[in-house]
Amino acid sequence: MRIDEMTTEEFRRAMTSDTTVILPLGATEAHGVHLPLGTDTYQPEYIAMEVAKRMDNVLVAPTMPYGQHSSTRNMAGTVSLTFDTLRSFIKDILLSLIANGAKRIVIISGHAGTSHICAVTEGCREIVADKDVQIMFFSDYFIAEEHEKCRSLKNDGHAGMLETSRMMDIRPDLVNDMRPIGTYKEHGFLVLRDGSRCFPDGMAGNTTDSSAEFGNEINRFIIDSIIRMIGSDFE
Amino acid sequence: MRIDEMTTEEFRRAMTSDTTVILPLGATEAHGVHLPLGTDTYQPEYIAMEVAKRMDNVLVAPTMPYGQHSSTRNMAGTVSLTFDTLRSFIKDILLSLIANGAKRIVIISGHAGTSHICAVTEGCREIVADKDVQIMFFSDYFIAEEHEKCRSLKNDGHAGMLETSRMMDIRPDLVNDMRPIGTYKEHGFLVLRDGSRCFPDGMAGNTTDSSAEFGNEINRFIIDSIIRMIGSDFE
Amino acid sequence: MRIDEMTTEEFRRAMTSDTTVILPLGATEAHGVHLPLGTDTYQPEYIAMEVAKRMDNVLVAPTMPYGQHSSTRNMAGTVSLTFDTLRSFIKDILLSLIANGAKRIVIISGHAGTSHICAVTEGCREIVADKDVQIMFFSDYFIAEEHEKCRSLKNDGHAGMLETSRMMDIRPDLVNDMRPIGTYKEHGFLVLRDGSRCFPDGMAGNTTDSSAEFGNEINRFIIDSIIRMIGSDFE
Amino acid sequence: MRIDEMTTEEFRRAMTSDTTVILPLGATEAHGVHLPLGTDTYQPEYIAMEVAKRMDNVLVAPTMPYGQHSSTRNMAGTVSLTFDTLRSFIKDILLSLIANGAKRIVIISGHAGTSHICAVTEGCREIVADKDVQIMFFSDYFIAEEHEKCRSLKNDGHAGMLETSRMMDIRPDLVNDMRPIGTYKEHGFLVLRDGSRCFPDGMAGNTTDSSAEFGNEINRFIIDSIIRMIGSDFE
Amino acid sequence: MRIDEMTTEEFRRAMTSDTTVILPLGATEAHGVHLPLGTDTYQPEYIAMEVAKRMDNVLVAPTMPYGQHSSTRNMAGTVSLTFDTLRSFIKDILLSLIANGAKRIVIISGHAGTSHICAVTEGCREIVADKDVQIMFFSDYFIAEEHEKCRSLKNDGHAGMLETSRMMDIRPDLVNDMRPIGTYKEHGFLVLRDGSRCFPDGMAGNTTDSSAEFGNEINRFIIDSIIRMIGSDFE
Amino acid sequence: MRIDEMTTEEFRRAMTSDTTVILPLGATEAHGVHLPLGTDTYQPEYIAMEVAKRMDNVLVAPTMPYGQHSSTRNMAGTVSLTFDTLRSFIKDILLSLIANGAKRIVIISGHAGTSHICAVTEGCREIVADKDVQIMFFSDYFIAEEHEKCRSLKNDGHAGMLETSRMMDIRPDLVNDMRPIGTYKEHGFLVLRDGSRCFPDGMAGNTTDSSAEFGNEINRFIIDSIIRMIGSDFE
Repeated sequence: MRIDEMTTEEFRRAMTSDTTVILPLGATEAHGVHLPLGTDTYQPEYIAMEVAKRMDNVLVAPTMPYGQHSSTRNMAGTVSLTFDTLRSFIKDILLSLIANGAKRIVIISGHAGTSHICAVTEGCREIVADKDVQIMFFSDYFIAEEHEKCRSLKNDGHAGMLETSRMMDIRPDLVNDMRPIGTYKEHGFLVLRDGSRCFPDGMAGNTTDSSAEFGNEINRFIIDSIIRMIGSDFE
Repeated sequence: MRIDEMTTEEFRRAMTSDTTVILPLGATEAHGVHLPLGTDTYQPEYIAMEVAKRMDNVLVAPTMPYGQHSSTRNMAGTVSLTFDTLRSFIKDILLSLIANGAKRIVIISGHAGTSHICAVTEGCREIVADKDVQIMFFSDYFIAEEHEKCRSLKNDGHAGMLETSRMMDIRPDLVNDMRPIGTYKEHGFLVLRDGSRCFPDGMAGNTTDSSAEFGNEINRFIIDSIIRMIGSDFE
Repeated sequence: MRIDEMTTEEFRRAMTSDTTVILPLGATEAHGVHLPLGTDTYQPEYIAMEVAKRMDNVLVAPTMPYGQHSSTRNMAGTVSLTFDTLRSFIKDILLSLIANGAKRIVIISGHAGTSHICAVTEGCREIVADKDVQIMFFSDYFIAEEHEKCRSLKNDGHAGMLETSRMMDIRPDLVNDMRPIGTYKEHGFLVLRDGSRCFPDGMAGNTTDSSAEFGNEINRFIIDSIIRMIGSDFE
Repeated sequence: MRIDEMTTEEFRRAMTSDTTVILPLGATEAHGVHLPLGTDTYQPEYIAMEVAKRMDNVLVAPTMPYGQHSSTRNMAGTVSLTFDTLRSFIKDILLSLIANGAKRIVIISGHAGTSHICAVTEGCREIVADKDVQIMFFSDYFIAEEHEKCRSLKNDGHAGMLETSRMMDIRPDLVNDMRPIGTYKEHGFLVLRDGSRCFPDGMAGNTTDSSAEFGNEINRFIIDSIIRMIGSDFE
Repeated sequence: MRIDEMTTEEFRRAMTSDTTVILPLGATEAHGVHLPLGTDTYQPEYIAMEVAKRMDNVLVAPTMPYGQHSSTRNMAGTVSLTFDTLRSFIKDILLSLIANGAKRIVIISGHAGTSHICAVTEGCREIVADKDVQIMFFSDYFIAEEHEKCRSLKNDGHAGMLETSRMMDIRPDLVNDMRPIGTYKEHGFLVLRDGSRCFPDGMAGNTTDSSAEFGNEINRFIIDSIIRMIGSDFE
Repeated sequence: MRIDEMTTEEFRRAMTSDTTVILPLGATEAHGVHLPLGTDTYQPEYIAMEVAKRMDNVLVAPTMPYGQHSSTRNMAGTVSLTFDTLRSFIKDILLSLIANGAKRIVIISGHAGTSHICAVTEGCREIVADKDVQIMFFSDYFIAEEHEKCRSLKNDGHAGMLETSRMMDIRPDLVNDMRPIGTYKEHGFLVLRDGSRCFPDGMAGNTTDSSAEFGNEINRFIIDSIIRMIGSDFE
């Protein structure tokens, strides 16, 4: 299922007109005192692989481990693309997958920053305007937020209870013992030079009660939701 | 050592003025009937990690799994960036690493295509022209070719004896039992619309005698060479 | 207060270091059977002028009457810029206002489409990264949504009850007698080739009870909110 | 006739294959001690509306109030786009009007700076090369200069007798009582860093005898000329 | 004096702070039945060399033999750059000359098309905005037109009496015996898809009385004018 | 045969579907103490003309006298384009030649720098991907290196024995009496800020035994090779 593990011939045979290709988009970004910089890479890659295991005819493209960052850009360890590079990357990969025969593509982004999402969306839009392809794009974080237990979380956000729990399920070895509490600081509609002023604690939420069990529940919910969407939303 | 496994604070402490950051550049590219599409990803990532294990003060950035391809572009499974996207990617990542304090950066590209190498080189040049940073850039394939046993290989090239053996050492589970023989077909100085005409067999070389032992010897040679270069060539 | 009505000398004297310049961003976009294509132009221009009348030291720049549109792009009368042109426009105007001495700039966009907002935001970010200026950017629609009566509106959106009422207050001569009811149609996370599939009725909401009184209340709320923000959020 | 005052349905019905769409291009530019910064906006907008009133089947698109400026760029109140942004703007708007069914488009620019005119021309050329559309582009100033009384004006130019009189006809409330005299200062073929060295007096010409009557005569001449051109030059 | 004939050391010694570097811009463009495609290359190169011979401290850079063409683009033998390539070319060459120490640069363009001139001008402007350099830019054709005998020529233009005579002086071997008569055909303000409709005869003017004597008089006038401008207009 | 010496009508008749157009690419680059800055211009132009004289149906386009330079960029007299300008130049010229009917194009570059070659190659590739044209691209230096006497030269390179001898054959008047000896200094895989560190002597090789005879032999070899390639490699 992993494209990078297939030979050219295996890939050629596997890629049929109703194959779904999942492209996981990761990031290298500061995620509080307790989570690794690759948090947004591990999550969508894990989700993509779990979806592929449970469905027929799903291929997983190599995970892109860099994204675009605004508010965490100045924090140690954040490595950011520009908006335009990310948009170009998306267009190139989509065109190349389409040239390989892909008709159904799902892009799952671990990072959910507004500009990052917009850059990917713009790239997708330019492609669907011209090509005979169906593209589904979302952050797994968006789906997690739909879970009823997540809706009731107050002020949980970047590197918060939700992400901590999910990582405790996916890569517990990379989550250390600290359980920070932090607040997102609003700045009205000011366009900030240093977006990190929004994260005085480097994260947002109360991670005290994070647990692998909760993370597992959320991860299952995301996986099930995506399986359902792939089954129903493509035409 | 893996940046994606570190927290922001661990990264901040680890990144000192004499830290070397290695950025592995992979690719998703047809590699004959026997090697996986991620061959050019597995090789530099492995080399980078081995170098980091043997040296103090080396960090490994997440591996970029896509590159630029010309001659294999039309083969099943090749997923290619454009020249400009790759160049922009390199500039963005370098600027972001430099903003994080990096002064010594080593870029190791698994793929050694001429345009791919040129795109990365051009990106590096634009950065060194402006920034206080030292950058070393090469393909591990270039170093392998310097090994005396490789110099004597005739017409070995893409997905040939050298790459097959190295992969048998690194990821034997991903090398199947076929051992193809192929020839690079010259086209003089014609600029080809379909570069795959150069690889009528999809690869170049005679892989019959490929072995993990030979691959291991070459991989050790590459690792040792890079350790020596990092120790001696940075000022 | 209107920059276009001032002479160069009047402008030079009026522009001091604590002057606030408001740049209204309009649009030319299909707005249902009942509202004019310039709806998103009239609203922010009106708001900007009312704010300027009530405050000292506020200048209003000429209103840009074109924006970027995705979901209504294929509807008759929508005239759309591309993302990149809008972003460049914002950067150019900001740089020119800054060269004229502006230190505080408020951008009010009538149109609130995601990509449009992102393009303007990206333009602003590139400028604040480099220049000694404070920029506030929002859609007046965002502020209207904060009004308690708007929060309780169900499924009101593009050309809905809120916009209809505001236009009945601002330009009643341009609102005809039709009062459409429409629904925003979700498409999950599919990237649509034709975004107008989201607006089968060309608008979203129930405009039956729209009134100039309600519109006036919302417009006053927006104006007061902006006056308060200008007074408190700039440093 | 004003597109921004029409509903989507009114626009759809009004736009037929022989409809002429006029796009007025304004500017925000220093215009001497006596004329408003929006002088180049008021003129083409007025002309466009008068032409539309006198002809059948003419629509007027919203006026773009910003242009590209070189020689007045450093004067207080000039707000300038770059060449490339203006060219992109023109291409975007033309493509969008064409997608809306426009086959005949007239662009009238109030500002007549060489680079500004070139940017618009280049944008138009790229579109006519590809699209089935007829485009007419000029500055109303170019037509005014053809009037016999204008030909005999000596050294009248930016914010001079001609523009002052036209503004006294169009917006007398915005023309103050000063009547400056100024000279355009030649600099041979030097490419100036500060183009305002060409306008030591901020304008060129002798405005002493400016009058609304003369302005009205010129404005009528321009309007009549455009009506004639629309009637005869489109195929 | 020709930079391409100097060694690096000769160039280094010759380039002092008051050296004038002349950059001739040529073109490859249809020039009627009688003149060679390189007409606009031969003229400025000849002029540049003659100026350099008559002055101290003037260097002549290699002549660029391609320009931007609109109205003759579709005629056989016209080889055209795009606007943006020409502008980039100018910026690159200026930056490189400035890096070599040039403080005074004269650009002489044989081709005088509006867009071509604008592209070069825009390139120059971007450079003078940032760099400590003086740039003079013109077409030798502009200077020729100032000669009293040329002012009295009626409707002489592209490949007309003026250019024919100048070429008879400079490269008589490349002027054949035909002496065409042609008319520039106006198209009002229509933006033409095929600009060659302006030149139904492929040229404009009456070449019957062309002569090397007249050409020589014009060429002397141009050379003398440029020598005077270099002596007086640089600061 | 020289396109710049032909009239539009002569060009039109000469350009048939099996015509070969040669585009020589020169450079303005420091070439040691003994060779002129235009060395890389004189060589391919000479070769192109000699090929054209010996073959039927070959046209020679005007020589572009500027290229892209990295390692010699900081040496006096090097005038360099950027990578992107050179690539755009190539695309523009190719598109224009193709629009003129060219089906077979040979690009000969005097300069053989890696980035320069890559820029031209990338430009060519973009064109052959879309257009019905055959393009051959090489540096005459590449062919010279194939000559058996050149293969045996040790460490001969930029401005070395080979180039000196060729220039003594082509333009002996521009080769002075110095015969330098120089060494290319390796810097491993470091990306150098100042590439001239590779040429501490400004050139590479031992020019002591350079001779017009040897240069002539090499030039004949290059000419014969190109004639053979044009005859055999185009389809």
